[in-house]
Amino acid sequence: MIDKLNTLSATELAAGIAAGKIQSEALVAACLARIRAREPEVAAWAHLEPEIALRQARERDRQAPRSRLHGIPIGVKDVIDTTDMPTEYGSPIYKGHRPACDAACVAQVRELGGVILGKTVSTEFATRHPGKTHNPRNTQHTPGGSSSGSAAAVADWMVPIAFGTQTSASIIRPAAYCGAVGYKPTFNLLNRAGLKFLSESLDTLGMLARTVPDAALIAEELSGSPPARFDEVGAIKPRIGFCRTPYWSQADAATQAALEGALPRLSKAGASVTPVELDAEFATLADVQIRMSSYEFYRALTYERTRFPKLISDSLMQRIRGGAQVTRAQYVETHEIAQRCRARLDDIHRNYDVLLSPSAPGEAPRGLASTGEPTFGVTWTLMHGPAITLPVFTGPKGLPLGAQVTGPRGSDARTLVAAEWIRRALSN
Amino acid sequence: MIDKLNTLSATELAAGIAAGKIQSEALVAACLARIRAREPEVAAWAHLEPEIALRQARERDRQAPRSRLHGIPIGVKDVIDTTDMPTEYGSPIYKGHRPACDAACVAQVRELGGVILGKTVSTEFATRHPGKTHNPRNTQHTPGGSSSGSAAAVADWMVPIAFGTQTSASIIRPAAYCGAVGYKPTFNLLNRAGLKFLSESLDTLGMLARTVPDAALIAEELSGSPPARFDEVGAIKPRIGFCRTPYWSQADAATQAALEGALPRLSKAGASVTPVELDAEFATLADVQIRMSSYEFYRALTYERTRFPKLISDSLMQRIRGGAQVTRAQYVETHEIAQRCRARLDDIHRNYDVLLSPSAPGEAPRGLASTGEPTFGVTWTLMHGPAITLPVFTGPKGLPLGAQVTGPRGSDARTLVAAEWIRRALSN
Repeated sequence: MIDKLNTLSATELAAGIAAGKIQSEALVAACLARIRAREPEVAAWAHLEPEIALRQARERDRQAPRSRLHGIPIGVKDVIDTTDMPTEYGSPIYKGHRPACDAACVAQVRELGGVILGKTVSTEFATRHPGKTHNPRNTQHTPGGSSSGSAAAVADWMVPIAFGTQTSASIIRPAAYCGAVGYKPTFNLLNRAGLKFLSESLDTLGMLARTVPDAALIAEELSGSPPARFDEVGAIKPRIGFCRTPYWSQADAATQAALEGALPRLSKAGASVTPVELDAEFATLADVQIRMSSYEFYRALTYERTRFPKLISDSLMQRIRGGAQVTRAQYVETHEIAQRCRARLDDIHRNYDVLLSPSAPGEAPRGLASTGEPTFGVTWTLMHGPAITLPVFTGPKGLPLGAQVTGPRGSDARTLVAAEWIRRALSN
Repeated sequence: MIDKLNTLSATELAAGIAAGKIQSEALVAACLARIRAREPEVAAWAHLEPEIALRQARERDRQAPRSRLHGIPIGVKDVIDTTDMPTEYGSPIYKGHRPACDAACVAQVRELGGVILGKTVSTEFATRHPGKTHNPRNTQHTPGGSSSGSAAAVADWMVPIAFGTQTSASIIRPAAYCGAVGYKPTFNLLNRAGLKFLSESLDTLGMLARTVPDAALIAEELSGSPPARFDEVGAIKPRIGFCRTPYWSQADAATQAALEGALPRLSKAGASVTPVELDAEFATLADVQIRMSSYEFYRALTYERTRFPKLISDSLMQRIRGGAQVTRAQYVETHEIAQRCRARLDDIHRNYDVLLSPSAPGEAPRGLASTGEPTFGVTWTLMHGPAITLPVFTGPKGLPLGAQVTGPRGSDARTLVAAEWIRRALSN
């Protein structure tokens, strides 16, 4: 059921489309065939209208390629507005909702010649309450959240790239659980107009993909950034800080062993690898992130919580109520702590190109009642720098484990190249 | 035609409502009567349904007061989403548009017992292309923009408070031109969910009002900030930096004379007043603000500019096209410059509680073809601190001139109290 077209990277597909060797319509048809075959088990899609996707593809095939996204099908997490498909934000409050405007990232993809394949499942408002998606590697397990559908669809060969968003660990965790590449760019790299805002200070638009260059592709096209120099991956010798983070004890033995076992392999491949300690204030960041985001959730979701309280899950309502208790002074303090830690992380990065840390506490937990813990995402979301998870390890249950590579704010291109270097070193 | 209810401040009205001496329905009816009388000339409202407003007011009158906003009518700039009234963003693209969700600020006002009176006229997407509003002080003149309707409605006794937004000078300029108080809070004081995003890094939600405490009222209630201590205004002796800004030569003679003439009066009232020079990099901020916002406009308005280019004004389209030319590196540089200047402004504020500068280059220009120049707003929008314009001067044509009071980021309460001190000193 997997066509070769399903397995090629977006970068390869773009080259094929540019050379006239691949038709977008055939590619989209292969994606739709894969979805038809697997969707009953995986349930990655919140909304899909094959004819809308095929019509876009046929139109692309009649046009000269406009960018490296031309003709490439892209999944869109259902917290991102689309005019031609419903956008339900993972909430029954928005059943059948049709926005009046495409989100900036969706409209940009269309302008650049991409094909919006469909809307992928999000947890409720991109928070913790799960959607219907299963982990494609083992459907008894969660795909992680909140970008559940995007991670599952990409990992299961349904689409080469999909948009996700991250406020805690919502790109990194599901990518790690499903065995995909996840890329949370530097805060403010990609325009957020048309995302359902939950936490203005943290919500970050990013990508799920199967290769690091594919994840880079959209971010570069949308932000107008120069392409990362993946052609130079072979020539670099990254300075890697091995960062257990203050949450190391929450990683299971297999995750700890996988990360620690990678270090000699990275050294052998030519990297300098040194442990990096984050100071005590970093250990407060999990709480800081909860306080900051809850204060913002309480306000951003005022309409929903006052008008449709019964349509909000208990877990989200509890989080919102917590936000009502956060005073303005406490909220301001969260920003001050974050700023201080960002400055100290900038200092750390004088000596390290990237830091290496776990992507999640372990393999995807069994069951769909929880999407797992965001433990290893929150620090890097709050620090605002680029974070990439690489599907380079396998856990004891045969499910994927990720390695997370993070870099200094604004250094997305260099961080992506270093991540690709690490991926290659650990894939040999 | 002006009822006493029209002339009371929101603070006075709130006290009357809390004491059971004023009914919200009577107050809203007085607002509607004033609007009926003046709207043909002023045209401040984009959408108004008297029955919707009155229904809310009657409901409030049956409830125990929930906050200092209880029963108070509030105008909402039409770039802010409302579910019960159309939201057209000042653009024909969105004619009749009905959002699915109230903006956070609107839902918060409702929760706190406020009455959403109606939608006020915005320029096109809160940029430069004018709406239909006239200056209530002289209808041959512009009210300024982009919060044109909010400024005109408040100044003309139609409503005590209205929401505005500012990306360049869109609260400060129309408030100054119409003779209202304008308050642009610290960036990120008020939640922006449900605003039409143009420039994520600059768009700021704020207020137009007739008194400084009224402007403070909503910001405090929505952000959960402790009330500014206006009861202590009489006891402070503010350290005022007189800041001509690098754009002083663009202020007309009357504006320069009004500001300079105020200095001895402020000193006499007990303030320390010293000139403050901003260094050369501050002189680049007008250009920096254009580059930063244009890069963001180009992306945020992708749907509109690709789907409805003919429904976008020439002036906005030119600005958008300019944004397409700003490279990512240039955009990143604008943030670096802004950060450097913010840090230097923090240093300056060690010696000054507030800075005093012009609010606009002069009186409201004649004619409705332009909303005037944002010259004296852009620096403070980019600096992210609180800015308040006070209607304390009159120009040679008998139109209002404002004095702008700005403070350090996050010091909204202190800045508002100092602004009130200055207003009183200059009103004697």
